[in-house]
Amino acid sequence: MKHFLKETDFTPPEVSEIFALARDLKSKRGRPECGRPLAQQTWAMIFSKSSTRTRVSFEVGIHELGGNPLFLNKNDIQLGRGESVEDTARVLSRFVHGLVVRTYEQAEVERLAAAGTIPVINALTDFLHPCQIYTDAFTMAERWAAPGGDLLASLKGRKIAFLGDTACNMANSWILGANLFGMKISLAGPAAFAPTAEFQSFLAAEGYAGRYEFTTDPYQAVKDADVVYTDVWVSMGKEEEKQERLAIMSPYGVTAELFAAAKPDAYFMHCLPAHPGEEVQQAVLDLPRSIIFDQAENRLHVQKAIMATLALPSRN
Amino acid sequence: MKHFLKETDFTPPEVSEIFALARDLKSKRGRPECGRPLAQQTWAMIFSKSSTRTRVSFEVGIHELGGNPLFLNKNDIQLGRGESVEDTARVLSRFVHGLVVRTYEQAEVERLAAAGTIPVINALTDFLHPCQIYTDAFTMAERWAAPGGDLLASLKGRKIAFLGDTACNMANSWILGANLFGMKISLAGPAAFAPTAEFQSFLAAEGYAGRYEFTTDPYQAVKDADVVYTDVWVSMGKEEEKQERLAIMSPYGVTAELFAAAKPDAYFMHCLPAHPGEEVQQAVLDLPRSIIFDQAENRLHVQKAIMATLALPSRN
Amino acid sequence: MKHFLKETDFTPPEVSEIFALARDLKSKRGRPECGRPLAQQTWAMIFSKSSTRTRVSFEVGIHELGGNPLFLNKNDIQLGRGESVEDTARVLSRFVHGLVVRTYEQAEVERLAAAGTIPVINALTDFLHPCQIYTDAFTMAERWAAPGGDLLASLKGRKIAFLGDTACNMANSWILGANLFGMKISLAGPAAFAPTAEFQSFLAAEGYAGRYEFTTDPYQAVKDADVVYTDVWVSMGKEEEKQERLAIMSPYGVTAELFAAAKPDAYFMHCLPAHPGEEVQQAVLDLPRSIIFDQAENRLHVQKAIMATLALPSRN
Repeated sequence: MKHFLKETDFTPPEVSEIFALARDLKSKRGRPECGRPLAQQTWAMIFSKSSTRTRVSFEVGIHELGGNPLFLNKNDIQLGRGESVEDTARVLSRFVHGLVVRTYEQAEVERLAAAGTIPVINALTDFLHPCQIYTDAFTMAERWAAPGGDLLASLKGRKIAFLGDTACNMANSWILGANLFGMKISLAGPAAFAPTAEFQSFLAAEGYAGRYEFTTDPYQAVKDADVVYTDVWVSMGKEEEKQERLAIMSPYGVTAELFAAAKPDAYFMHCLPAHPGEEVQQAVLDLPRSIIFDQAENRLHVQKAIMATLALPSRN
Repeated sequence: MKHFLKETDFTPPEVSEIFALARDLKSKRGRPECGRPLAQQTWAMIFSKSSTRTRVSFEVGIHELGGNPLFLNKNDIQLGRGESVEDTARVLSRFVHGLVVRTYEQAEVERLAAAGTIPVINALTDFLHPCQIYTDAFTMAERWAAPGGDLLASLKGRKIAFLGDTACNMANSWILGANLFGMKISLAGPAAFAPTAEFQSFLAAEGYAGRYEFTTDPYQAVKDADVVYTDVWVSMGKEEEKQERLAIMSPYGVTAELFAAAKPDAYFMHCLPAHPGEEVQQAVLDLPRSIIFDQAENRLHVQKAIMATLALPSRN
Repeated sequence: MKHFLKETDFTPPEVSEIFALARDLKSKRGRPECGRPLAQQTWAMIFSKSSTRTRVSFEVGIHELGGNPLFLNKNDIQLGRGESVEDTARVLSRFVHGLVVRTYEQAEVERLAAAGTIPVINALTDFLHPCQIYTDAFTMAERWAAPGGDLLASLKGRKIAFLGDTACNMANSWILGANLFGMKISLAGPAAFAPTAEFQSFLAAEGYAGRYEFTTDPYQAVKDADVVYTDVWVSMGKEEEKQERLAIMSPYGVTAELFAAAKPDAYFMHCLPAHPGEEVQQAVLDLPRSIIFDQAENRLHVQKAIMATLALPSRN
């Protein structure tokens, strides 16, 4: 049983195929020739946090693949309280054909995957956000690959600069993803937000020990960058620390001036929602080289490709 | 891009076609010849208030048109909080094919429509409830039009009496709708609930300045009326003012005696839920000329016709 | 209009057909030859309690029968508050093709069934849980019937021992079900949890007055039992009485020793979620003769058979 819990759950050749499939599904969206790889299947979505993009992109994607999306608020099903995570995985495996899980602990998606008999997709944990990173990489590759050419190969040697909250799941995932995709990554944020010892151990276990640059100088990070990337500074659940976080991260906001210090043909990316005036200026969001809405849309296409790749065959 | 945010978003000839389509979809409900105009489409429903009729009629309608309904509680997606209404519209436009929105401010549905690239339907705001008004008019016309005849034409010159809370969205919408459909409207309610200056400006801008009668005498309003219409006096969110509202509105309750003062062949209508003993007597609800459940059912058929009219073509 | 509100709403010959259909749907799951008896139908699910198994099994089942599941939290639709239960039944009957209801009072499902014009299924009340009991019986019969043989007939004369909370809806339903299926039932629990006078009157009205054994001795109940059955001691809503209930019920926990006092080829069953160390030992849950996950899965197949049996014919 194959799962998608972290970026490295697929090998580069598999990533290359997923990207090719995403491109195909995108160009044929809405046409019958897309087929229905999830026909007669229900995929459950277990979400512990509210979400626009993640929820809508998965519900739409499951439907467009011919499947039935079943959205479950984590409280609704009392995951980990009314019964063990393992029993829930065993029971759900009898009813549904895949799980899309958005939760806090990475260990929870791993336990669901280990106990069940159906594919599990990590749709966000506090530790990693692999669906977003695959989407981001695909969005870059759409612009860099030759028409019909290999998308993954077009990422090789490119540099991504990640600014701001460099200790979050997005930063973790981009460090892992950049290494998997053959990219260079430089992160700039407050010294206190450098990648943690826990993450460094994880990265070493993945075979990429120390394969990133961390700096407190945002200009150093964006130098020669092909992509300047940031995420909100105060995400859900962090509202109490808001003033403190805004203050310490303010040197890392993506201003027009900072963005101009990247490569002239660099792109600006953001996984949204954006808080203009905090992690990024409105003027940067509005630049032609800001590709944030294409990036959002690609969640749909890339996640469809991932689900189609993981799905057990339908019987009809 | 065409939207349905207020009654006058369709011209009379377009209304005539929508009513004809609704009649056709109603007679063929459940049969394959209805087609699937929303095939491969997902329509998101963003609701800020709970609702039986509106939610169920839209979810069923989208499904019966071949589409995938995606219900989102407004809190789930943090509309207007986590990100701007405009960004939400832009992102959802990449994923889904239509929006059905039930919210408070009319400006919000207008902003969603302006920023997005998909059809938006007003499924209730504090200001207007156009899906209900189209449904009500269709329900009357089903009874008045000759078999196969033009439904809209059958409304011409008819009189509707609206009693009780004459300052609510239903009253606003019926004033606008009656003018669009060529009907006369008389409203009877407490003096303090006369149409507001804001509404009068709106009505003037629509080209119907002053085109209604308002009276504090319920018997004057129902005189010669073809339809006697009322709505709950204490709707969701108004519970605190309950006693005050019940007291001031009590002269406008639809009693058997008041209803008998309308035309002998008048119908009683109510958009439900009804609170018997308040805005209407149980005896009136139970009359053969009370057509409240047919009216409720027609939400389904009329909304299907509206969605089928607004939908972008499916690719398959 | 046929409903499924209590076990005895089907006669034994009808039960036999439902079990045969469930076996057929199970063996062909996911194959086109299963047909789509709910095509073009929406079935609403009104739930007042959160639930994993019940919700997921019904949503998946409705989808696999070709229908559209519409999940409604009871608060969302204000059942019994915003409008009468009867009006809600009348309105929903215009929109949807079946109702699956999980609520507190048995009277509520009966009122919905009486006022509406669509099939109603009791998916759990405080009084009965017939979908679970049919599923449990089917799960036993799968093991006892000859291949292709009549499933219901294989239950005849078998003995089920029900331990622990013998005053709950599961106990009530198993007393009724055992009689309907031609089984013997012995219940062991604290004296204060003997079947109530109210239940005894109900049982008498069903024609089964006194047709069960109640004992405070768990060993007497399991003697010669073909199935040892238990349920959680502290279900949702009973958390306040937790310590008291655990103490009084502790003699009735299913230990390996107690289970060994049943027939050598007895099965252990539990409707889940299980609380190991309370009503059952983990060692018993892990026995090869513990068939709890097959039992959970069969909710899907049996409920599909019930819905397919009750559904009004689709028009296409």
